[in-house]
Amino acid sequence: MTESTTIFIGSKPVMNYVLALMTQFNKPIAEVTLKARGRSISRAVDTAEIARNRFMPNLKVKSITIGTESVQDEQGKNINISSMEITLTNQSSEPKSSS
Amino acid sequence: MTESTTIFIGSKPVMNYVLALMTQFNKPIAEVTLKARGRSISRAVDTAEIARNRFMPNLKVKSITIGTESVQDEQGKNINISSMEITLTNQSSEPKSSS
Repeated sequence: MTESTTIFIGSKPVMNYVLALMTQFNKPIAEVTLKARGRSISRAVDTAEIARNRFMPNLKVKSITIGTESVQDEQGKNINISSMEITLTNQSSEPKSSS
Repeated sequence: MTESTTIFIGSKPVMNYVLALMTQFNKPIAEVTLKARGRSISRAVDTAEIARNRFMPNLKVKSITIGTESVQDEQGKNINISSMEITLTNQSSEPKSSS
């Protein structure tokens, strides 16, 4: 139960990421981190909220961090882009002794 | 120093909100919360990151929360929309005794 995994949120429909998140939590996994940059950040929030409200009420937000990453644009110029990480845990799958 | 204020992030250029944030912290204010919904969420992250990296290195993220709000669309139908709140504090303006 110590394993964790990361899902990178891109520009696909949000339900693709909700499904990926639920697939990960079907394994005996402790936590899943959603990583997003730029305009995909709102989609990462949507993914966490849709999963929690519709499919997995035991999902808890463990931590949210924001930051800035430097990436190269099409002309090879460095640009700064905002990033966010949402780490989620599934409370119901934790051993009873820990709660 | 206990006062706090909220800035609602909409669809204006991000620098408008960076300026609003810096204007608030010029007052003796303890913390400022950025609130955003839907696609404006990534702009709220941009606002916090640009202010911190370019103008106010003492800015600290105190907390980030995500949630879901129910709003009415143009046809009067209830739709769920993701929301985010980023609470920021300016470390340099805090009294020395507290740190």
